[in-house]
Amino acid sequence: MSNIFSERIIDVPKSFIREILKVAVEPDIISFAGGLPNRDLFPVSALQEASNDVFDSAGKEVLQYSNTEGYLPLREYIAQRYETKKGIKVSPENILITNGSQQGLDLLAKVFLNQGDEIIIEEPGYLGAIQAFSIYSPSFRTVQLSDEGLNIQELTGVLNTYNPKLMYTVPNFQNPSGISYAKSNREAVASLIKDKDIYLIEDDPYGELRYIGEDIISFKKILPEQTILLGSFSKVVAPSFRIGWVVAPDFIMEKLIIAKQASDLHTNYISQRILDQYLSDNDLNEHISLIKDTYNRQRKAMLNSITKYFSDEIKCTKPEGGMFLWVTLPDDIPAMEFFDLAIQNKVAFVPGDPFYINKKNTSTLRLNYSCVDEKNIEMGIKRLADTFARVIK
Amino acid sequence: MSNIFSERIIDVPKSFIREILKVAVEPDIISFAGGLPNRDLFPVSALQEASNDVFDSAGKEVLQYSNTEGYLPLREYIAQRYETKKGIKVSPENILITNGSQQGLDLLAKVFLNQGDEIIIEEPGYLGAIQAFSIYSPSFRTVQLSDEGLNIQELTGVLNTYNPKLMYTVPNFQNPSGISYAKSNREAVASLIKDKDIYLIEDDPYGELRYIGEDIISFKKILPEQTILLGSFSKVVAPSFRIGWVVAPDFIMEKLIIAKQASDLHTNYISQRILDQYLSDNDLNEHISLIKDTYNRQRKAMLNSITKYFSDEIKCTKPEGGMFLWVTLPDDIPAMEFFDLAIQNKVAFVPGDPFYINKKNTSTLRLNYSCVDEKNIEMGIKRLADTFARVIK
Repeated sequence: MSNIFSERIIDVPKSFIREILKVAVEPDIISFAGGLPNRDLFPVSALQEASNDVFDSAGKEVLQYSNTEGYLPLREYIAQRYETKKGIKVSPENILITNGSQQGLDLLAKVFLNQGDEIIIEEPGYLGAIQAFSIYSPSFRTVQLSDEGLNIQELTGVLNTYNPKLMYTVPNFQNPSGISYAKSNREAVASLIKDKDIYLIEDDPYGELRYIGEDIISFKKILPEQTILLGSFSKVVAPSFRIGWVVAPDFIMEKLIIAKQASDLHTNYISQRILDQYLSDNDLNEHISLIKDTYNRQRKAMLNSITKYFSDEIKCTKPEGGMFLWVTLPDDIPAMEFFDLAIQNKVAFVPGDPFYINKKNTSTLRLNYSCVDEKNIEMGIKRLADTFARVIK
Repeated sequence: MSNIFSERIIDVPKSFIREILKVAVEPDIISFAGGLPNRDLFPVSALQEASNDVFDSAGKEVLQYSNTEGYLPLREYIAQRYETKKGIKVSPENILITNGSQQGLDLLAKVFLNQGDEIIIEEPGYLGAIQAFSIYSPSFRTVQLSDEGLNIQELTGVLNTYNPKLMYTVPNFQNPSGISYAKSNREAVASLIKDKDIYLIEDDPYGELRYIGEDIISFKKILPEQTILLGSFSKVVAPSFRIGWVVAPDFIMEKLIIAKQASDLHTNYISQRILDQYLSDNDLNEHISLIKDTYNRQRKAMLNSITKYFSDEIKCTKPEGGMFLWVTLPDDIPAMEFFDLAIQNKVAFVPGDPFYINKKNTSTLRLNYSCVDEKNIEMGIKRLADTFARVIK
């Protein structure tokens, strides 16, 4: 009976982060382990109003089945926003609405990856992407991330040695590291893969959450023909709607639509309509400003507390946006062991291991600051520093 | 560049039915081509009320990310309903909420099917299932459906010759044929596969829509360990929420949860909450009675019109529920050609071809009666009969 399952699923273990989060929910634990947007910032009443407008004006229609591509006015909004915010020209025909960008990853893997096909991924890499791709049994080729972006020498080596079909990147405020690729790094990456048979997936859930510095040019703008762009409303409006999107060239879009239809026919239609109504009646930029103010205060509180309570023995990224920062402990302190001690001290984080392909006992960890207020951030970081002080003795 | 895609997607053609439906939407065409529930029966105001209750009472929470399995009280409702309506005991732990049952099909294929694995499917078979499974490149083994259910002799032959992992069935008011398996047929099927390494998928989107006769025992009750049950709120509440479910034994559920998480993290949470609120505040049985009254009148109108306008040269199923009936033309009239003539005569249906694996120029077709009122049903069937009269001359 053990061989009844497909090869693709048989060895995938239960989600490590699911298990971690179970530990981290106890009420007296200060948790930096989550990856959630702050629920106090959800536009509840504006969405309720939008919902009522949609029920009142189109109740029957919005409860019916809909088309696979997604609601056209919503795709037009997204296209328009790309043009206004980033100067990227995208046709609504090249946008597919998905159940969050996680489904975008699944659909891309479905249409591109045969077993053993090579895919480049950042190290550390986004866990949701590792999970989505793993189902299709590719060979991962990792390229290290540092403060400037991808390690260009390593990328050059990978491209010379292997034959990757896809390259997965989160160039803005990456999860888990908080790192953004510098402009020069993006240009170097683009020039290395230009005109090769390789598609770059630019996953950008956090791009709108920049607190300091200036927006950096999108891969979609540098290398439009070879870039597949993923976006999401989860971090800037609300995640429960599960509304994300994929931007892809025509001939890829055609395959994605077939895969989407076979996967679930279409994305929840009434939620698309409510979201579209909300976006018509409200100023998204204004709402994002509120989110940015709060997250930026919490980001600063976390960075300041780290400076205040930790010695120089740890390193930590200094993100300009997003929801995470990334800590590197001394080599001889595995983050998994540190986690067990930290939990005893009533503070939680995500140890780095699940963000690596085939690496264990790493000394890195992810801290989230979107959901914890400044006072608790300081208290939590102090607990973490106390734990660290005992370990390092 | 043509070999950039995965093998699984490269040969899948554009959906035939999508193309058909594009033709069928012109306003002066009477269309029996759809497969949609009747939107005039959606409980719009009750759902709007439920939506407001959910926003009022739990606005922040219901906009956040949620768990992969689905909202527990909703799974408890489904479990309770199985017990009350069918005497089937199911634990909520064995229910996974999916984006419609289409996603249930995709997830089952994902966790079970390696390339070339054998799967038994009805002939004619449900197109959505054929599409979902095709992505995983299985070998389909077809077994003919007749008025009593599966052809037992053929099934015996297939089981003796091949080694199927899965068997896909729609035992109640099947799409496309409207056929239900008789009790004796279900028992014969169950005894043939009992204790073999094969799982029976019992897809039951229409089971609650029975207009005459009595409910027939579920495979889940005859063969609980080997049956995976799929259900959906799309036909009894509203499809746009995309809320269906899979009932599976523990060791399969574990794999399905991993696959679901990799596919899209979780199903739209606010819609689960609104639906659950609606089910708490309203009597679903009462609402289903309204749907049944209307669909049954339309079913009778269609059967009566066929008797009235057609000669004995066509055959047609006499469904006791659901939304479809199935017409067999004389062998020398391919339904595709008949379709082109019917469209000229301003009436549409779905030709049978896409419901077969590797069969073309079939003389069968599907008629839907859920979305057309009795007057238009009679007019549409008359147009169809007029078209037929010209063909047969």
